[in-house]
Amino acid sequence: MGEFDFIADCLAPLAGPQGLGLLDDAALYTPAAGRDLVLTKDTMVEGVHFPSGHWGADTAEKLLRVNLSDLAAKGATPRGYLLSLSLPEGFDMKWGKAFALGLKAMQDEFGFSLWGGDTTSTPGPLTVSATLIGSVPSGRMVTRSGAKPGDSVFVSGSVGDAVLGLDVALNRKISAASGEALWAWENAYYRPQPRLDLRHLLRAHASAALDVSDGLIADAGHLAKASGNGLSINVDDVPLRAATRLWLAAQVDRKAALSRLLTGGDDYEILFTASDENTVVAAAKDAGVSVTVIGKVTDGQGVTCTGRDGTVWTFDRPGYRHFRTIAPRQPRP
Amino acid sequence: MGEFDFIADCLAPLAGPQGLGLLDDAALYTPAAGRDLVLTKDTMVEGVHFPSGHWGADTAEKLLRVNLSDLAAKGATPRGYLLSLSLPEGFDMKWGKAFALGLKAMQDEFGFSLWGGDTTSTPGPLTVSATLIGSVPSGRMVTRSGAKPGDSVFVSGSVGDAVLGLDVALNRKISAASGEALWAWENAYYRPQPRLDLRHLLRAHASAALDVSDGLIADAGHLAKASGNGLSINVDDVPLRAATRLWLAAQVDRKAALSRLLTGGDDYEILFTASDENTVVAAAKDAGVSVTVIGKVTDGQGVTCTGRDGTVWTFDRPGYRHFRTIAPRQPRP
Repeated sequence: MGEFDFIADCLAPLAGPQGLGLLDDAALYTPAAGRDLVLTKDTMVEGVHFPSGHWGADTAEKLLRVNLSDLAAKGATPRGYLLSLSLPEGFDMKWGKAFALGLKAMQDEFGFSLWGGDTTSTPGPLTVSATLIGSVPSGRMVTRSGAKPGDSVFVSGSVGDAVLGLDVALNRKISAASGEALWAWENAYYRPQPRLDLRHLLRAHASAALDVSDGLIADAGHLAKASGNGLSINVDDVPLRAATRLWLAAQVDRKAALSRLLTGGDDYEILFTASDENTVVAAAKDAGVSVTVIGKVTDGQGVTCTGRDGTVWTFDRPGYRHFRTIAPRQPRP
Repeated sequence: MGEFDFIADCLAPLAGPQGLGLLDDAALYTPAAGRDLVLTKDTMVEGVHFPSGHWGADTAEKLLRVNLSDLAAKGATPRGYLLSLSLPEGFDMKWGKAFALGLKAMQDEFGFSLWGGDTTSTPGPLTVSATLIGSVPSGRMVTRSGAKPGDSVFVSGSVGDAVLGLDVALNRKISAASGEALWAWENAYYRPQPRLDLRHLLRAHASAALDVSDGLIADAGHLAKASGNGLSINVDDVPLRAATRLWLAAQVDRKAALSRLLTGGDDYEILFTASDENTVVAAAKDAGVSVTVIGKVTDGQGVTCTGRDGTVWTFDRPGYRHFRTIAPRQPRP
């Protein structure tokens, strides 16, 4: 199967009317009146953002999920996307078909469509890039820069699953885990849940928001800096999955282990600030997404982390280094 | 210089207000009322779309020029773009700075701005991807599918320069060339001129249009297929630069040589159809862009090529194969 067949057979069926059958030079989109557009673009490189050889539906899902998570953090509703695939030498188009099935699953789950893009070859690793277009009612996009002193700091879902999931994905030794825990962690790594169900809450109540991709502490720092304020976080209030709490309890150096969960990144939960805790908690319950208060916006700058016992925590590395390389996938034992 | 410094020092100064200083998760764009959006995305891979090691401003320019050319063919005005850079190991950020200067030159020349994107590392070749957003008055985007029998077929500028320019860029032996010719061909390869000056003409008069990237004959076939009609082209009417005509006259096998010019691709001229030759020629003159009538839309299907002497031409390979690999750049002799 060549490029044109792959596009016609696997990708064209995913195109919305904006995509013009993937037969034109460009997509055509008529924005609804009274809406702003929210646009985001993320690239994933084999061996950097996903394990080498992991070419199928999981990678397609993750590409769209991480981009959808950016839209979710801004309070936006996804509309469509453009996709670039750079396929390595020897790429078997069966993987292309699997990749397209992963795209389709995401489109069906989150209600958006393929508008265009391109396919090229590469002498390097599989490289996939998506540009997502979402929309919000005019003036309602949530930025990173609106946090005000006295606002509470919230995070959705649970933190630290994905960094353990990377251990699972790379077949690293991992302790104290049930089968369910291994599945939950690996699932969190490959299939983070974009918190689109929070978009109405965020538009209505959030003063600032972002999604946690680099690591909770690093991203809290980005929000604090953009808002020109400080964030104070209680590390013992950060929500952890039950399996992760069990894992943590089994670690010899609890502080180092918790630090890893708080800085590992790839969580794709929403970190946001809002003034009215009770309203937010009630709205989150209505949306079916758990949110937890983990701190306060302060007059200072940067992120101050303390434990429940009053100890101040510092971190050598508050988040993911974008230029890190994931080790090649080892065969499963 | 790390990722964050590169973004802050080299890319953030290129951001328009929609880019929020490149400090947020996404771009925010409020489309003007009464406009449709036109979106296109193209990726370029080192060693496939540009010679290995050619990392600087030329590559930035070409990335934006080829995407701008897609917008031009649709009659759209560029507004902004999102950019992904996957940087190889050992990438010296001096090249990143040069790349950013190429971006800036394009923004200044064509009047649009950087809205967002991302930077990653790659164990493979330099891979760059841009998503461009343009706009047209509602309902005025020119598609590939509106050509009607009896319409004339036009092409802008001159054809075949870029395929000779690739010879120059790769230091292949090339005959009968003055220094000016070498410069013009290499320039056409690295710095194709997006025909944005034709956008008003195209919106007003074109029944169908596309930009010639795969090769004139292949792209004529794409337009014919999308429109459900045939195209008849007189190969001797295809406009060639004077230097290219001299080159052609010096070739032993003229037919093979002209075939190469007509199928080599990377021209980024606009191939379009319109019913009124005189009006189009006058409007093109006003726009300061040469356009040439090269054929007619017919009731048939596919592309029929004839010479001025009535001979029917066929082509083994009507256009660029997307998956081809450019040989590594050789040192200049």
